[in-house]
Amino acid sequence: MLELRLVQGSLLKKVIEAIKDLVTDANFDCSATGLSLQAMDSSHVALVALLLRSEGFEHYRCDRNMSMGMNLNNMSKMLKCAGNDDIITIKGDDGGDTITFMFESPNQDKISDFEMKLMDIDSEHLGIPEAEYHAVVKMPSSEFSRICKDLSSIGDTVVISVSKEGVKFTTRGDIGAANIVCRQNKTVDKPDEATIIEMNEPVSLTFALRYLNSFTKATSLSESVTISLSSDLPVVIEYKIADMGYIRFYLAPKIEDDEEEIKS
Amino acid sequence: MLELRLVQGSLLKKVIEAIKDLVTDANFDCSATGLSLQAMDSSHVALVALLLRSEGFEHYRCDRNMSMGMNLNNMSKMLKCAGNDDIITIKGDDGGDTITFMFESPNQDKISDFEMKLMDIDSEHLGIPEAEYHAVVKMPSSEFSRICKDLSSIGDTVVISVSKEGVKFTTRGDIGAANIVCRQNKTVDKPDEATIIEMNEPVSLTFALRYLNSFTKATSLSESVTISLSSDLPVVIEYKIADMGYIRFYLAPKIEDDEEEIKS
Amino acid sequence: MLELRLVQGSLLKKVIEAIKDLVTDANFDCSATGLSLQAMDSSHVALVALLLRSEGFEHYRCDRNMSMGMNLNNMSKMLKCAGNDDIITIKGDDGGDTITFMFESPNQDKISDFEMKLMDIDSEHLGIPEAEYHAVVKMPSSEFSRICKDLSSIGDTVVISVSKEGVKFTTRGDIGAANIVCRQNKTVDKPDEATIIEMNEPVSLTFALRYLNSFTKATSLSESVTISLSSDLPVVIEYKIADMGYIRFYLAPKIEDDEEEIKS
Repeated sequence: MLELRLVQGSLLKKVIEAIKDLVTDANFDCSATGLSLQAMDSSHVALVALLLRSEGFEHYRCDRNMSMGMNLNNMSKMLKCAGNDDIITIKGDDGGDTITFMFESPNQDKISDFEMKLMDIDSEHLGIPEAEYHAVVKMPSSEFSRICKDLSSIGDTVVISVSKEGVKFTTRGDIGAANIVCRQNKTVDKPDEATIIEMNEPVSLTFALRYLNSFTKATSLSESVTISLSSDLPVVIEYKIADMGYIRFYLAPKIEDDEEEIKS
Repeated sequence: MLELRLVQGSLLKKVIEAIKDLVTDANFDCSATGLSLQAMDSSHVALVALLLRSEGFEHYRCDRNMSMGMNLNNMSKMLKCAGNDDIITIKGDDGGDTITFMFESPNQDKISDFEMKLMDIDSEHLGIPEAEYHAVVKMPSSEFSRICKDLSSIGDTVVISVSKEGVKFTTRGDIGAANIVCRQNKTVDKPDEATIIEMNEPVSLTFALRYLNSFTKATSLSESVTISLSSDLPVVIEYKIADMGYIRFYLAPKIEDDEEEIKS
Repeated sequence: MLELRLVQGSLLKKVIEAIKDLVTDANFDCSATGLSLQAMDSSHVALVALLLRSEGFEHYRCDRNMSMGMNLNNMSKMLKCAGNDDIITIKGDDGGDTITFMFESPNQDKISDFEMKLMDIDSEHLGIPEAEYHAVVKMPSSEFSRICKDLSSIGDTVVISVSKEGVKFTTRGDIGAANIVCRQNKTVDKPDEATIIEMNEPVSLTFALRYLNSFTKATSLSESVTISLSSDLPVVIEYKIADMGYIRFYLAPKIEDDEEEIKS
């Protein structure tokens, strides 16, 4: 039997909104340690990994490991019916073919339960090794979102280059070219507004803006975002989820010839 | 001659927005007691009845009874040109084929008059007898609107069931099923936020959500809505209009076999 | 060499939004006195004239006169990437085929530069003689915008008539007719909220609402608008730009037979 009670139900609403455009169907894996998900996007280019640790729930009961296949669009329709201040409880029976979302309004006036059919989804769980990255950039998530959106009006890809002074985002398109430089800045009022660069060696990688823009749907989950770059690894874009866990997006860089990279 | 001066002109704007999607053309009946309207929707399933009593107008002159056929879409276009704080005066001549809406801005800087052509509309006035209802539910109008909208993302019809403890809204669709229970709650700060159940006998009726969602366009007119249910009568959804009158929507329940009703 | 630094960068953003729907491509003329533009709309019915005087820039360097052809839609895409509080610097080389927009965030954390290709655009500069007008109306720009928008829901053209008491806007369409009168009003808290009529002789002219609605895209640039009317001249609709200059729109009146004008 499964019963997960999340006081800050809006977190679950935001998590699903953050990934439903990237992933249509996915298995939610529930174990004693928490609720997790790992899925590729439909074009098998990007990977999303979600973790909500059991400690983050007010009540967490998971008698045995369960993998529950859900259509994220349907799940989104149901969670949109929860108020932003509602407590959300996820309930399921071992081996059942449905799951129930219960929403309780703060003053307990209104109790809703939504029952959703589960699906069988084939998936293989990829092991993602911990890695050392050439550079790790922590910056305000709204700033990163704004930059990806702005550059999309000029070009299709972005070169992200990290040096000690800052991180540079470069694109080029039919109407011209654009460079945006964000400087390291630790002297801000709130820690989440800082831009912090940790760099072992300079790195410059090219990504499709389409995917980055999809990842930034998670912006409302966290004030800051962490971008981990290495020349031989997929980039990791991580949004922390309060004290509970994270959403991580992985995306392989595009290979371009050196001359092109120097030009841009 | 007709001259009706309404200081809170935004009420008239809201009234038209509330019914124009349901009813295209309708006769406004003006008599010494007030301005009223009764019309079926185009599919002849729902009925709307409007009353604005003469006492609610700052100035009310109606020399003899008039029935004025108006296209509600055109009327809406004109009333949208009135500011929300404008005073609206409706003027007409006996037997004239036009009506004039005059808008005065609060500081009298700006005076507008919009002349609209009247139409001949066949209509028969239905007598609606006062009836005893099995159950009457008064609840916040925004809550009722939210529930109808939320359930529409799951199913096409809703079963409304009233018991002493509360009112339950149930739907079922391809992606799953939903139950929303609102408990009786009289201990609130504002009377309009209360949920109050008056029940003579339990009742459970099925309605098309499409119509209910159309009725909730009247939500901005009143903080609370009253739902009167009987197993052998159309439901009445009433929104009070300040001290002036009301909009009432009537909708016949859908007939379903008993087993289906028990299941949902 | 050209280098124009504008501290209130949002002004440039608003200027481009105000004219880009009317004019697709235009030459920006840069001289020692300022940055200016003059262009006809694509149907050669309306003319827009822009002036941003050099004194309005924090830094203004223009070594020799330059005429720079720009696609306003592309320019808009780039300027939308500037924050509303950003400082914008326009940079160009003599005879170069690109121009650079540099955006600096207020705290200098983020520096962007956008390079746009210039175009060759044929244009002849029209001399616009200073003229005496029969009537000049100054009114709140938001009120003028609201009136043009409101009347568009009724008719296609507007008759603007000025008398000592006020300015009247009249339209007529299939669903009826509308008159809006704004009275002279100098006794307001803020000068920009005044409606002031200066009249040498009464005037009544007809204009296409489509163009007026396009001009009102400049509403965010100025709290008030000035409308200068003469029976034998195009109307001038002017929005002042802070202490820097103006946008002026010129539109020829529509010729209608006298009877039609009297009727409306």
